[in-house]
Amino acid sequence: MSMEKLLSPKTVAIVGASEKEGFGGDTCRNVLSYANPDNVYFVNPKRDEVFGRPCCHSIADIPVDIDLVVLCTPQKTIEPLLREAAAKGAGGAVVYASGYSEVGTPEGVAAEESLKALCAELDISLMGPNCAGFINYIDRVVGFAFISDERDRTGSVGFVSQSGQLCLSFMDNKSMRFSYSISSGNSSVVTMEDYLDYLIDDAHTKVVGLYLEGVTQPEKFEKALRKAAQMRKPVVVLKAGRSEKGSKVAASHTGSLSGADVIYDALFQKFGVIRVNDAEELLATTQLFATLPTLPRQAGLASINLSGGETGICADMGEMAGIEYPDFEEETLEKLRALLPSYASPANPLDTTATISYDAEVYASVLQTVMDDPNVGLVVIGYTLLHEIADPCIHHMAKGIESVVKNGRAKPMVMLPFFENSRNPEYLDKLNGLGVPVLPPPTYGFAALRHLVDFIGYDPDENTLELAIPEKTEATGRRTLSEFESASILREYGVRTPEGSVVDTPEAAAKTADSLGYPVVMKIASADIAHKSDMGGVALNIKSADEAREAFERIMGNARTYAPDARVDGVYIQKMLPPGVEVIIGVNSDPQFGPAVLVGLGGIFVEIFRDTSLRPAPFGKDEARRMLKRLKAFPLFNGYRGQEALDVEALAETIAGVARLAAERRNEIVELDINPVFVYGKGKGICAADALVVVKD
Amino acid sequence: MSMEKLLSPKTVAIVGASEKEGFGGDTCRNVLSYANPDNVYFVNPKRDEVFGRPCCHSIADIPVDIDLVVLCTPQKTIEPLLREAAAKGAGGAVVYASGYSEVGTPEGVAAEESLKALCAELDISLMGPNCAGFINYIDRVVGFAFISDERDRTGSVGFVSQSGQLCLSFMDNKSMRFSYSISSGNSSVVTMEDYLDYLIDDAHTKVVGLYLEGVTQPEKFEKALRKAAQMRKPVVVLKAGRSEKGSKVAASHTGSLSGADVIYDALFQKFGVIRVNDAEELLATTQLFATLPTLPRQAGLASINLSGGETGICADMGEMAGIEYPDFEEETLEKLRALLPSYASPANPLDTTATISYDAEVYASVLQTVMDDPNVGLVVIGYTLLHEIADPCIHHMAKGIESVVKNGRAKPMVMLPFFENSRNPEYLDKLNGLGVPVLPPPTYGFAALRHLVDFIGYDPDENTLELAIPEKTEATGRRTLSEFESASILREYGVRTPEGSVVDTPEAAAKTADSLGYPVVMKIASADIAHKSDMGGVALNIKSADEAREAFERIMGNARTYAPDARVDGVYIQKMLPPGVEVIIGVNSDPQFGPAVLVGLGGIFVEIFRDTSLRPAPFGKDEARRMLKRLKAFPLFNGYRGQEALDVEALAETIAGVARLAAERRNEIVELDINPVFVYGKGKGICAADALVVVKD
Repeated sequence: MSMEKLLSPKTVAIVGASEKEGFGGDTCRNVLSYANPDNVYFVNPKRDEVFGRPCCHSIADIPVDIDLVVLCTPQKTIEPLLREAAAKGAGGAVVYASGYSEVGTPEGVAAEESLKALCAELDISLMGPNCAGFINYIDRVVGFAFISDERDRTGSVGFVSQSGQLCLSFMDNKSMRFSYSISSGNSSVVTMEDYLDYLIDDAHTKVVGLYLEGVTQPEKFEKALRKAAQMRKPVVVLKAGRSEKGSKVAASHTGSLSGADVIYDALFQKFGVIRVNDAEELLATTQLFATLPTLPRQAGLASINLSGGETGICADMGEMAGIEYPDFEEETLEKLRALLPSYASPANPLDTTATISYDAEVYASVLQTVMDDPNVGLVVIGYTLLHEIADPCIHHMAKGIESVVKNGRAKPMVMLPFFENSRNPEYLDKLNGLGVPVLPPPTYGFAALRHLVDFIGYDPDENTLELAIPEKTEATGRRTLSEFESASILREYGVRTPEGSVVDTPEAAAKTADSLGYPVVMKIASADIAHKSDMGGVALNIKSADEAREAFERIMGNARTYAPDARVDGVYIQKMLPPGVEVIIGVNSDPQFGPAVLVGLGGIFVEIFRDTSLRPAPFGKDEARRMLKRLKAFPLFNGYRGQEALDVEALAETIAGVARLAAERRNEIVELDINPVFVYGKGKGICAADALVVVKD
Repeated sequence: MSMEKLLSPKTVAIVGASEKEGFGGDTCRNVLSYANPDNVYFVNPKRDEVFGRPCCHSIADIPVDIDLVVLCTPQKTIEPLLREAAAKGAGGAVVYASGYSEVGTPEGVAAEESLKALCAELDISLMGPNCAGFINYIDRVVGFAFISDERDRTGSVGFVSQSGQLCLSFMDNKSMRFSYSISSGNSSVVTMEDYLDYLIDDAHTKVVGLYLEGVTQPEKFEKALRKAAQMRKPVVVLKAGRSEKGSKVAASHTGSLSGADVIYDALFQKFGVIRVNDAEELLATTQLFATLPTLPRQAGLASINLSGGETGICADMGEMAGIEYPDFEEETLEKLRALLPSYASPANPLDTTATISYDAEVYASVLQTVMDDPNVGLVVIGYTLLHEIADPCIHHMAKGIESVVKNGRAKPMVMLPFFENSRNPEYLDKLNGLGVPVLPPPTYGFAALRHLVDFIGYDPDENTLELAIPEKTEATGRRTLSEFESASILREYGVRTPEGSVVDTPEAAAKTADSLGYPVVMKIASADIAHKSDMGGVALNIKSADEAREAFERIMGNARTYAPDARVDGVYIQKMLPPGVEVIIGVNSDPQFGPAVLVGLGGIFVEIFRDTSLRPAPFGKDEARRMLKRLKAFPLFNGYRGQEALDVEALAETIAGVARLAAERRNEIVELDINPVFVYGKGKGICAADALVVVKD
């Protein structure tokens, strides 16, 4: 399968070429506007000419071999045309036609299966079906079916969308400049993962934007994201399905199996992928990365504005987005005092007052002064650029910005408007040309800036860039291991569990209890009995051999009475643990991405405050420690209110051990719960008080 | 002071009238564009004509008496001109000139004081100084200094801004329609509170928008908000200063004393005021309220969109904003199945598919069907209206919307675009005319919708629409009462405290302990000793008269040794409390708005999770109960995990008692802390285990 023949072909045939409105005509119009026409061949059995260019009557009539065929024709013509195209050497095809799996009928699904099989037979990389096609702006290749206003959009955003509508909306935005814009449709042959991988490798693509409804090839997805992380190429993803209703919509739209949404958050965090909440934020964030000539070298932002009201908005909205505005150095403040009107009070965020925006030179000096502050990584210029310019200050501001850029000491800058609007095209182009993106209003703009700050703070070397993707299996059953079995597995991975063993006579109980030392805990040992306490299967605080003997008889008796059908291994005797701070460690295996480890403080912290950290396995101790630090309740680990600091190191070691276990046994374990782990004071370790492992069966 | 002569004058003089750029010329241009010119008189000593209209050489030359004078002239001319205007009957003045308190110099502050005194002397309602003026769109009165594009902006938003820039930005938005647009400047004579009050009373104003940097007249503010709540007129406020840096900016911009920001949140919640985070959200929310012909009658929203991607965004972003999308009734689903293409799967949010948007009749039927669903209060039409229309579907959609409106069974509707842009003016006007506001993209749009839902859910009758604003006082000192004194005050307001009293001999200690019943707790009784335990001033779990005698000697001895200078009242003996769930009740008195009561679960819940409810006093038990219900930890009160349900009623009663105490003693109490209150099981009440009251001194 050749991605090059599809996305970067040398020769292209447009089948169904026409001058009418509709797929054929609109594709031809796009070709004439954006494509290098030399190697494009129009095909239509009924026409000799289309828009004044010669038109072949069939693919076979084309005088040269072709790489890519763009089929603007209805579903029933597709398979024969693909055969014809293959005979002419085509390795890529774009199919707009619908009527496939997206209609949800058995016929539609069958048609798509047949199409896939044919592509495999002919070795054709097919985009679609049910797509709007693509434009490769770099090589000027066009197979795109929707019209938008004519202008140069060549740039460095590689965009792939499972929704054609979003593709078109992105092209409608005056700031967007693309390397590739791809509407992938049903993505049944060439998949979203293939496009992603291609764009990450593509040298012209500075940032990849992705509208994602679901993943079908987790291994490919993982591999692509690892590569992007290692190359430090930003990948910005709008993943539908944060809400329960949204995830239903995504599933019904593409039929892709979407796992729990939280796993995507955890996965993206691990690989440094930027997740956005909606299409506008996706647009703003990709545009930001694409337009900045360099990334900021530190997280601190400076905000400069022309009015006090706007400065206050930047202060508040920035802080709410987690933006850090470092205080200016005294030297910076001194210079600003000399530059600004006497009634201005220099600070970060800075109200420059409107006065200075009418003097390009002073404006440039203020900008340069703020940039020169050693704590500043990027400058946010607050200004509402309108479509129709009424206030001439933008002229002077742009001149000031330009002279700072030309002086060569510029740090990254963005312009942040306070209201939505179309932006004046002339100034938009000028600012874009200077490397200054114009963001959307504060909520979106600061969200994009926060993504930028997170991106520069991400270090691929600090993250285990792997998933533990399980093999596909037919097994649908699940079997719960007994507590004793569960504990044995955990111990193999260095997780401390209470000393103890399973005994099957009263004498053995007494002997084992003696050798463990008192007090001990005794529990019925049976994988069939889940709620041990409820049926009298637990005895706590046993203090002598006699008590142990007596407890054994009682527990076994209760089991016979209340759970006569349960398979009983005996009684599990454990040394009773001193109480510690209760932590929960859990593992859940996502059918696509494999196990992820969850950690949180026990009880209400997890259940009411939802204060948990989640991370896909495998990962090591450093990552486990970072998981703990991300908990809101983390201060409780560190000696809260004069209490003893807890053994965070031992806990991190334990979490990492569980992650290793989950990864190594990815094909076996469905679920694992340690609830609770007792965490003791610094240097005193932890102990898994109760553990349960569920395996595939 | 006449607000009418300022804001709704019969005759207006523009002093400094001119044809040049600048305040004078731009004000005249605005007059010619928007004002009823019949009663406007231009004044300029150097001109006989301005823009072809006669111009008087002085105010005295004006042939009639005037109500309002607009001074476009520099600071030094202001006071003499005000005297001239007053002589001509003026009761209102607009002063653009700056150089007053906003420059922060002693001269500026003095100039403003002098101006205020003069206005008091002349009985003039003055807008400004340092303002951009206002336009009264209803009576066509103009005293506004900034130019924006010419078009009719008459509508029902009354907007007051302490920032002139925001005023102008609001006018730049094509959807905004105003009753009044007021840039209030320094607001030193006529205050922001006066404008607010005026607009709440104004029949043409449907919604009041306010950009607020600080309150200077809390009583007026309270009165205005109470009136608005009772009239059910929405007041939407952008209050600067959510962040620490933002609150510094606000303070330096207007010099207004801004109290803790959290008190504004609590205050606004009480009065049903809508607080927004930035200017775009302010604009969107006021526009939403102004444009909808009626408010929705229930909170459930329906979302309809042309693509699956957009439907997913609405599902996710709506849920994140706390929007409720009720499931459609079976009857609705059935009708939709008949109307939509076979491959559509009806649900809420609804993907109608793009097909139906090209058929006005079908589109109208779908819209009406969704509206007819009994669970739906408002319909959100997801569609990115662009400036240049490329896709004709909007034509059919608008026709469909129109026919639904004309049929007379329409529920409220909004249009929600997915990307920022200017909107096509023709369709914008059409949709506005049909009562369908076009919102900004999802983050902002859903925030505005959430405000709408909150507004219709607010019931003024469920809120005590009062504050306990303290009298201004010179007292700056504070005095901490002893625990015994504090407890006595609390008991007056029905708060249960442990039985006990202060004794000053060992014999009295033994006798008191005997009569209380054992065990008892004994503590040093001294307002001068804060940390009683540290100096051996506390004895717990005293079980006999002998122990009580002995403890008395020991505690008094320790006090003599370790706090020789403290004034000691004796030893406070209390019955020892059984432990309960620990709750904190606190009161802090805001210098402007008076006491607010805070409640939260003790320890980490307050300190780490910041899980608290705050409400300004006074209020009653129902409100106290709602405060508790708003706590994230509320499930813990209600029998979490099989534990005993707590006595929420007794706790609510106690909180209401504290609120009454705080309100009645507003001029005395600075701070009050009950930490902890023990809350017991249902029917078993509460007890304030430790309480501290700090009073003014």
